[in-house]
Amino acid sequence: MAAPDARPSSAGPPPARSLLLPLLLVLLLAAYSLPADSAARPSSNSNPRPAFTPPLLKRHQLRRPSSSSAELVAGPANASTKPFTAHYFPQLLDHFAFTPNASTVFRHKYLLNDTFWRRPGAGAGDDGPGPLFVYTGNEGDIEWFATNTGFMFDIAPTFGALLVFIEHQFYGESKPFGNDSYRSAETLGYLTSTQALADFAVVIRGLKRDLGAEAAPVVVFGGSYGGMLASWFRLKYPHVAIGALASSAPILQFDHITPWSSFYDAVSQDFKSESSNCFGVIRAAWDVLDERGATDKGLLDLSKLFRACKTVKYAYSIRNWLWTAFTYTAMVDYPTPANFLENLPAYPVKEMCKTIDAFPAGADVLEKAFAAASLYYNYTGDQACNKIEDGDDPHGLDGWQWQACTEMIMPMTISNESMFPPSAFSYDDRSDECFQSWGVRPRPHWITTEYGGYKIDKVLKRFGSNIIFSNGMRDPWSRGGVLKNISSSIIALVTEKGAHHLDLRSSTKGDPDWLIEQRRQEVEIIQGWIDQYHQDMAETSS
Amino acid sequence: MAAPDARPSSAGPPPARSLLLPLLLVLLLAAYSLPADSAARPSSNSNPRPAFTPPLLKRHQLRRPSSSSAELVAGPANASTKPFTAHYFPQLLDHFAFTPNASTVFRHKYLLNDTFWRRPGAGAGDDGPGPLFVYTGNEGDIEWFATNTGFMFDIAPTFGALLVFIEHQFYGESKPFGNDSYRSAETLGYLTSTQALADFAVVIRGLKRDLGAEAAPVVVFGGSYGGMLASWFRLKYPHVAIGALASSAPILQFDHITPWSSFYDAVSQDFKSESSNCFGVIRAAWDVLDERGATDKGLLDLSKLFRACKTVKYAYSIRNWLWTAFTYTAMVDYPTPANFLENLPAYPVKEMCKTIDAFPAGADVLEKAFAAASLYYNYTGDQACNKIEDGDDPHGLDGWQWQACTEMIMPMTISNESMFPPSAFSYDDRSDECFQSWGVRPRPHWITTEYGGYKIDKVLKRFGSNIIFSNGMRDPWSRGGVLKNISSSIIALVTEKGAHHLDLRSSTKGDPDWLIEQRRQEVEIIQGWIDQYHQDMAETSS
Repeated sequence: MAAPDARPSSAGPPPARSLLLPLLLVLLLAAYSLPADSAARPSSNSNPRPAFTPPLLKRHQLRRPSSSSAELVAGPANASTKPFTAHYFPQLLDHFAFTPNASTVFRHKYLLNDTFWRRPGAGAGDDGPGPLFVYTGNEGDIEWFATNTGFMFDIAPTFGALLVFIEHQFYGESKPFGNDSYRSAETLGYLTSTQALADFAVVIRGLKRDLGAEAAPVVVFGGSYGGMLASWFRLKYPHVAIGALASSAPILQFDHITPWSSFYDAVSQDFKSESSNCFGVIRAAWDVLDERGATDKGLLDLSKLFRACKTVKYAYSIRNWLWTAFTYTAMVDYPTPANFLENLPAYPVKEMCKTIDAFPAGADVLEKAFAAASLYYNYTGDQACNKIEDGDDPHGLDGWQWQACTEMIMPMTISNESMFPPSAFSYDDRSDECFQSWGVRPRPHWITTEYGGYKIDKVLKRFGSNIIFSNGMRDPWSRGGVLKNISSSIIALVTEKGAHHLDLRSSTKGDPDWLIEQRRQEVEIIQGWIDQYHQDMAETSS
Repeated sequence: MAAPDARPSSAGPPPARSLLLPLLLVLLLAAYSLPADSAARPSSNSNPRPAFTPPLLKRHQLRRPSSSSAELVAGPANASTKPFTAHYFPQLLDHFAFTPNASTVFRHKYLLNDTFWRRPGAGAGDDGPGPLFVYTGNEGDIEWFATNTGFMFDIAPTFGALLVFIEHQFYGESKPFGNDSYRSAETLGYLTSTQALADFAVVIRGLKRDLGAEAAPVVVFGGSYGGMLASWFRLKYPHVAIGALASSAPILQFDHITPWSSFYDAVSQDFKSESSNCFGVIRAAWDVLDERGATDKGLLDLSKLFRACKTVKYAYSIRNWLWTAFTYTAMVDYPTPANFLENLPAYPVKEMCKTIDAFPAGADVLEKAFAAASLYYNYTGDQACNKIEDGDDPHGLDGWQWQACTEMIMPMTISNESMFPPSAFSYDDRSDECFQSWGVRPRPHWITTEYGGYKIDKVLKRFGSNIIFSNGMRDPWSRGGVLKNISSSIIALVTEKGAHHLDLRSSTKGDPDWLIEQRRQEVEIIQGWIDQYHQDMAETSS
């Protein structure tokens, strides 16, 4: 192993790539809250390293997006077995302006599966063609989301549904400026949620026209940020979609609607609920890590302990690596084995805590933390070493960093009761960081201006209809979701043991009864929307 | 009088300014439909003049907007008596992008009247502060609309309401690029309805915060295009406004929702309902006009007959001048004297037809048409001559031409049964004309994609709430409005004898009972929204 280079040639921000490794959209959000307080914490590192900073990548640190050829994402689907076909729609860059730039047209990717579709025509029956079930893509390659949304495939036969998965602009193959899309604010400036929603409306309308399926009802589905988009789409485009299943959609994680510490309190609660020893070990690990990482010798030892492929240069890289493991594992604390972010066993938080609790009481706290994190990164045991500072992003989620610097300002703090080191949040700091990194200032109150959120129960009690907000309380994002019914048709389906958009995953033999029941309810409600739609359409206009 | 210059030096499009004279927003829309068929009609003019073309102004023909100083609009309000104060909000140019340009900030004008407002604080009573009644400004100086929306002033005392009138971006004093705002598509490209709605949301939120009135309910009001904006605002921003009064809002005048001939059929019906002779005279006038205007001598005679201040160069200038008079008079066929577009008597269509019918049967058809049109342009008799080819636009409505070339594509045709010459509509022609004039292509189906419209009764039957669509059937725009109740709280209030947003005008002593009743219903419904809001707020969240 090469000697560690403990003296970075530049005092600029650290790469902090490890935090991006598994990068669920949400991860980055969460990660953003970490650093704010770091200035107040004593630096235990003797090297002139910057304090633990948020995973704000410098532009030049962003990987260039892959070429627009149909590169396959990781996952069970491959060229021969993929259950969808890829298509491209000529999409407008900017729906809300008519400047010369706005009318730029790009290839907007979407996926189709028509295996079970009841097509328009003679055989379509009294109710006409089967519905369109449309996934409102979030911040990554659409094929990855399609691959992890087996629920739609599972229920398509019952409904005779056409499945459509629409990629979010600026992700995957849907990059308006090709390889230059992430170049600067001049290009990335068009990456917004509002444009994405308008894109979806345009694609759906165009697709229905091309298929002769104008009469077919549309239901939108989405998980996480995609779930936010699904619920917002139903609210903003009720004439396009008759209903939305918004799974694990933290639409209330903005402004002061949800307590800022709720996310990390929930992560901590997940671990504490399994074992207070487990919680305590993780809580104790951070200071030990800082202390040992304060010297070059310490970093070398840590690199060995954490089986780093290359000697780590910064203690906070390990910190990020651990942080990611614990946070994401809480999110995907599924009741069955799954391979969404990483390959994991059923109830992985419980498994992590078992691992920690199996150590003798006096064992090294970092050894315990490493063993727990290894469950996340290397459950199958096929990783000879860990890419702690040079991980890559297989799902093309980099654009989220831009979104977290523009619209998606979800303030997060870490309370003293958490198993993570306390941390504050500052709008000003975020703004300065974003300006430094991207030349852009966030509009921190835009999301609640555009989509609402405050007093949502009052606002939507007499407005809107046909939305399911599903949440699993093991998922820390659930705290920013809609957890109570708002009206007779804006429904919250909450499972105590569920995790991040668990309901959208394929059913498996090991599914617990409460999950089977949650999905059954979803099918029943969606069927009700469709039946109502057909009834309404059959009535003569008054 | 100087000899007419019947040989234009250029074969380019005619100025066609006369059509812009009184320019209600809607006028331009209507005017757009006129020319399409003209190519098929025999040209009776021997000069190489372009056929009757739509009032698409060339950029260089657009008057420069007035300076940003507070220039007063015409109307009853003057500096000493204006019932509002002007304010300016630092507004974002583009809410839907984060490009460097998007973050340009401009001075966004709004008006306030707090005379009757029940302010936040001890005296506000159990229900907190009085509501905000917000006018969602349309395509012109906001002071003009405020001056012509006396209904809001009339009802403010009853509600203890704060009155707010927000100017539409790119109109009046709210020009993001000052005098350069209309320079090209680079600047005008940001003039869109979606930006305007977002502007309104931002201003309202900021205003409520600054006034400490977060708890105050907001009701939006608007007439014509402003009414379209009000209804769309309620649909898109239900968390900002609890309800909308959308008066004479032709939100269904797009795509193929409303028959394309309905507007001019309705104008014709207005005149026919008064007198079939009147209808026949106007119907006969167009061919006679073309015939006589085909020679220089004829144009000179016509200039005298129509008392033109300068000899007219094109017969279609007179055609536009007449067209405007008949069309606008139908729109503002109010039951009481009014001075919205021009100073007019009560029931002006009836008066026009009386004028026509008073002529002996054998009189010159153009003399009759001129006399009728003079009622519109010169009811007070103070105009010594008519500015037929060099009229100006006192209300700053020029930007509507841009909107009619981008989003506001309302196809209109003229049927054989109309009193106007038959005319078709072509999307391609409109697109080419717009490209030629502005370098922009319309997005003709965008409005229905963004806001809906097809099957609106089905879509909103179970979605949305608290909108009043008021229409008067004398107003040809009513045909593109919502004329039937959609749900228990999305209500159509239709008066057979009403005209263009008549209900929004100040009450007068001469108001007929049906108008008094319509306004009473509006007040009752709005009071119901506010009461419901306070009830909902008082309930503990479930």
